[in-house]
Amino acid sequence: MLKSASPSFAASLRSVLPESVFGEIQPRHRDEPRGHMRGKAGVLLLPSSTEQIAEIVRRAAAARVGIVPFGGGTGLVGGQVLPSGPDPVILSMERYARIREVDLDDGVLVTDAGAILADVQSAASDAGRIFPLSMASEGSCQIGGNLATNAGGMQVVRYGTARDLCLGLEAVLPDGSVFDGLHRLRKNNTGYDLKNLLIGSEGSLGVITSAVLRVDIPPGDSMSVLASISSPADAVDLFRKAKERLGNAVAVFELIRGTGFDFLREVRPDVRLPLPDSDWLVLAEFGDVTGSDLQGRIEGLMFAEIEAGRIVDAVVAQSIAQQHELRSLREMIPEANRLVGAIASHDISVPISRVSEFIEKGMEVSELFGPLRINCFGHVGDGNLHFNVFPPHGCGPEELAVLRESREAISEYIHELAYRCHGSFSAEHGIGRLKANELRRYGNPAGVEAMKKIKASLDPFGIMNPGAVLPPPLQD
Amino acid sequence: MLKSASPSFAASLRSVLPESVFGEIQPRHRDEPRGHMRGKAGVLLLPSSTEQIAEIVRRAAAARVGIVPFGGGTGLVGGQVLPSGPDPVILSMERYARIREVDLDDGVLVTDAGAILADVQSAASDAGRIFPLSMASEGSCQIGGNLATNAGGMQVVRYGTARDLCLGLEAVLPDGSVFDGLHRLRKNNTGYDLKNLLIGSEGSLGVITSAVLRVDIPPGDSMSVLASISSPADAVDLFRKAKERLGNAVAVFELIRGTGFDFLREVRPDVRLPLPDSDWLVLAEFGDVTGSDLQGRIEGLMFAEIEAGRIVDAVVAQSIAQQHELRSLREMIPEANRLVGAIASHDISVPISRVSEFIEKGMEVSELFGPLRINCFGHVGDGNLHFNVFPPHGCGPEELAVLRESREAISEYIHELAYRCHGSFSAEHGIGRLKANELRRYGNPAGVEAMKKIKASLDPFGIMNPGAVLPPPLQD
Repeated sequence: MLKSASPSFAASLRSVLPESVFGEIQPRHRDEPRGHMRGKAGVLLLPSSTEQIAEIVRRAAAARVGIVPFGGGTGLVGGQVLPSGPDPVILSMERYARIREVDLDDGVLVTDAGAILADVQSAASDAGRIFPLSMASEGSCQIGGNLATNAGGMQVVRYGTARDLCLGLEAVLPDGSVFDGLHRLRKNNTGYDLKNLLIGSEGSLGVITSAVLRVDIPPGDSMSVLASISSPADAVDLFRKAKERLGNAVAVFELIRGTGFDFLREVRPDVRLPLPDSDWLVLAEFGDVTGSDLQGRIEGLMFAEIEAGRIVDAVVAQSIAQQHELRSLREMIPEANRLVGAIASHDISVPISRVSEFIEKGMEVSELFGPLRINCFGHVGDGNLHFNVFPPHGCGPEELAVLRESREAISEYIHELAYRCHGSFSAEHGIGRLKANELRRYGNPAGVEAMKKIKASLDPFGIMNPGAVLPPPLQD
Repeated sequence: MLKSASPSFAASLRSVLPESVFGEIQPRHRDEPRGHMRGKAGVLLLPSSTEQIAEIVRRAAAARVGIVPFGGGTGLVGGQVLPSGPDPVILSMERYARIREVDLDDGVLVTDAGAILADVQSAASDAGRIFPLSMASEGSCQIGGNLATNAGGMQVVRYGTARDLCLGLEAVLPDGSVFDGLHRLRKNNTGYDLKNLLIGSEGSLGVITSAVLRVDIPPGDSMSVLASISSPADAVDLFRKAKERLGNAVAVFELIRGTGFDFLREVRPDVRLPLPDSDWLVLAEFGDVTGSDLQGRIEGLMFAEIEAGRIVDAVVAQSIAQQHELRSLREMIPEANRLVGAIASHDISVPISRVSEFIEKGMEVSELFGPLRINCFGHVGDGNLHFNVFPPHGCGPEELAVLRESREAISEYIHELAYRCHGSFSAEHGIGRLKANELRRYGNPAGVEAMKKIKASLDPFGIMNPGAVLPPPLQD
């Protein structure tokens, strides 16, 4: 069993670490962003080097004290807060945030884990490159957290997830040893893939301390299209046609339900909305090297798709400012969702061929569980949908309380539906603590068993992010 | 300790498996392709279903009999042959080779592991798609082996390695349980990344039985260039310039030393060689969607690079037949190497920025160890070089015997050099048994320790491909 981070444990750390490492826990260290849970307090540590982190982990392992790695705190599955059990060390990475270099020949950016994603993007951009990982929380999430959770976001359809954008990493393992895999190699077949094991392990197998990230050459030409369409099936068809005509120039391909725009109107009446009465919209961004006639090819696609009846209406953004404006509409949707207040949120993925079927059957929750509003939006090019369920407009507190009682049943319905479509109950958010039951339920038994064995072998005392991903071991 | 696959063990298998599963061991099951080692005989099994494989593994685990998974037998590090110890089960996948389907909406091909890579390519091509994994051995290597070793090859610079081309897989784990991760999802953050742990584990953590592979839309336009250049440094510059002008249209970017062509002349005098007197050559292949003015952009690149003096002379192939002809020159080099007979072969990678330095220092082996010929060729866009060392032309048997005594010293020199350039001693071939010592020597100690723990946790009796990647456990 784990022990609390006691005053004597803290004192033992003070004997070897500078005073600057010790901090005061703030509400942001304890509050899960959607209010689903509150983390325990404990000892907040803010190390600024790999050596300090290794020292902390070694001492925590010896004392059997749990460690909760803490990045930007933006995760949506409670991986960053420990709601019960002995008080942990909260290991905040915010002071280990140096962006070390951008190397153009190697095509890499080297950074410590606490760097804010937007700062990583800026550093790449200052060097004439792009770091394409991009999501609504980029102003506060940290690259270490992005890697620990294998973050996805907008541009996965072209550039892949955080995993695909990382060449090498350094991490402190649960015994306090330092795994130095901080290389910048495109190919390196020297044993088991520890990099990818640590990526997506949500801090439960080690603390990612530094990383070598791929940066890419920015597209010389770019263009965005917001198109009004009739159905998700048309979005899937349009995606395939776009890929056939534009190949890898398709950088973003998002499906937005009209409800998302309704919510924006509700909570941000100042925002001007193009194509305001659409049932469904697609936001597509394209980028390619100069001279590849991007505009001509996009126009060819659009003419053909308007002709075929798949595009009902569209606006095109050519200037960077206009492109940002369209993108920001999409990025405001999660915040609008938060303000409207979801009853249940989901982050599912299905094979692209089943997106339309999933949405059609998912919509039935508003018949099965009461007069609910559904905001479905997401990365249709990846088969990843955020399928969120809201109370009706003007819903009073009593009605809301009744509807909220269905939260678990709604989520079970949606996750079952994803499962039956051969999909996933967590496409990009991870397991954390809020989806640990779903992993037990839907995870492949042999796979979950293998995960438990790996966890026990690398972290026999269960100190690394206890209860995240997998339940803590029962034995002493 | 492991036990031999005894007659009574074979009899116990015969009681549950059809007669067709039992085969006769052929020389190809025992001979390492370069003649470095010969595998032990044992019981050859040729299962044709996942259930049969699970049954075999369960019984082998119970009897503590080692299993050597066997694909096309083309691996170059001895991962497919067990040279010593108790007789193993040789588990050949050749009869579990059904290519199940190509799905255009999902962009996937689903296949069982024994399918030959060239057959997978053909099945994709028949459906109007490409499966871009491509290498000289594609006519005989199997997709299961490609995944088990995370094969690379020619088109990694654009499409990634086998790992990047696999969405999901099924595998039989060392306890005989079946890990069903055979999904076709682009995003699926549900726990530890077992897919990537199995990929590259060289059969030491389980037997990959089936896989979902990504297929891509074939480029509408394509073109190949073979260019004579002055130095590896020019190749690196040319690669960066090509990426800047052509982005993702760069599909192949290979460096070839003139020696490669000399060897072709020596062993294949019938082959017509373009640019015959080059010191160094680059073979680049480009492909993009129709309408992206590929030809204009390539011509722009070539004019600029001829102007800048980096391209000395060049031939351009526009027809598919001509493109195949250029590609086949490159693909004949490994066979020419084999016929000439290398003293030492290496498969290293370094950061792209250090390719030139590595080659320059590597060339010094011919001063340090005698009058050696060096054939250096490889995937310069990935920083992956095959740096192979040969006796001088017309070398007599006595001189050859003397030169061969330096084999280990040469390899040590080259691997040390790669290490000092922050590179890898095995870029794409893996560890197998021939590079296990190098892993001990150059692997990060914390990483190797973690690998051992993972191996012990998933395969406590050490039955899966004993001695591959990691040394077998010492305890009983």
